[in-house]
Amino acid sequence: MSLSEYFPIYNKLSKDDQEALLQVSSLHTVSQGTLLHGGGDDCMGLLVVRSGQLRVYMTSEEGREITLYRLLGRDICLFSASCIMNSIQFDIMISAEKDTTFWIIPPCFYKQLMERDAAVANYTNELMSTRFTDVMWLMEQVMWKSFDKRLAGFLLEESILEDSKQLKITHESIAAHLGTAREVVTRMLKYFQTEGAVALTRGSIEITDSAKLQKLSQ
Amino acid sequence: MSLSEYFPIYNKLSKDDQEALLQVSSLHTVSQGTLLHGGGDDCMGLLVVRSGQLRVYMTSEEGREITLYRLLGRDICLFSASCIMNSIQFDIMISAEKDTTFWIIPPCFYKQLMERDAAVANYTNELMSTRFTDVMWLMEQVMWKSFDKRLAGFLLEESILEDSKQLKITHESIAAHLGTAREVVTRMLKYFQTEGAVALTRGSIEITDSAKLQKLSQ
Repeated sequence: MSLSEYFPIYNKLSKDDQEALLQVSSLHTVSQGTLLHGGGDDCMGLLVVRSGQLRVYMTSEEGREITLYRLLGRDICLFSASCIMNSIQFDIMISAEKDTTFWIIPPCFYKQLMERDAAVANYTNELMSTRFTDVMWLMEQVMWKSFDKRLAGFLLEESILEDSKQLKITHESIAAHLGTAREVVTRMLKYFQTEGAVALTRGSIEITDSAKLQKLSQ
Repeated sequence: MSLSEYFPIYNKLSKDDQEALLQVSSLHTVSQGTLLHGGGDDCMGLLVVRSGQLRVYMTSEEGREITLYRLLGRDICLFSASCIMNSIQFDIMISAEKDTTFWIIPPCFYKQLMERDAAVANYTNELMSTRFTDVMWLMEQVMWKSFDKRLAGFLLEESILEDSKQLKITHESIAAHLGTAREVVTRMLKYFQTEGAVALTRGSIEITDSAKLQKLSQ
């Protein structure tokens, strides 16, 4: 499979731009746990995910974290190329949650393409709106939703992503996803266990009653 | 002053598009307190603020509020025209905090302009990045910053916006800006008063020591 099949507006580009895109872009594979983008002025380019899973998150000065969204196959990351837009004035971090294969489209190439091609500029707009929607959804969750509901929702989402009811994830890691402290996660998981929704064992969480967890998330 | 001087990329448009823009856009004035956009499918168009002050905020199902950002003279509101982009899937509210005069650029006109003109599309991108940056800043505040710092920062910002140390604002209204409960605001303001940073009177808050408030905000 080539980048041409993963870049949604490939067919809207001129023949020359199509050729140039394939020529300047490069395919990379990183293993689980790799930090791809560490905030700051780093501007590696647009990431087009072929397979795997990336986590996009925010950190505080004290090192606390919260997951903004995940990128899966066919997703495109714009903020790893934040230098293409002057008005993007915030830092995010990107790490690989699974072994991940992706193309990098160099920022300079994309920027000049976007500046002269309305289709590319409008596609970039749609990409940004999608991420904006993700972040607004998260803002709503953080502001108005109680932690038990957020945690239940997170476990269900993980179960779908991993295609398993046995989640190999630490309380610490859940805390980093949800932007809270480990103790808060542990306390709530114990409550879920007394409710019969999950069973806790060392280093993993088993979803024993999805319907109950679903109810807890609403 | 005409819209041509308030729309930053007016000079990049063709003569025909410049004429059409001025012809289809209309100037409106609303008084303080007017709800301009109530979320949902409402798609009035881009708002170009000539003078006044708009508040863009989010509400919970239970009616709680948090201010996302303010729009002042020369600011442009994109999300009052969210129908121009499919991927914008969230609701915001817009109300006038002061008597406000603005132009409305109809969404259909802007959409077709953006679709064929790369300069307009890229300008729209920059607009969205600016708002995205505002919301990411707010997310950081909400996630990592303690409430005393947020409140102190808010009072200083209000003082600049109003160009006065005497703020005519209720505790209820501050709570809606900051996404919290009135009691929390009242408690913290009383603490600020014992610290000598503010003096509280019925219906207003006087900043008596800006330097102290500045220190409290850091």
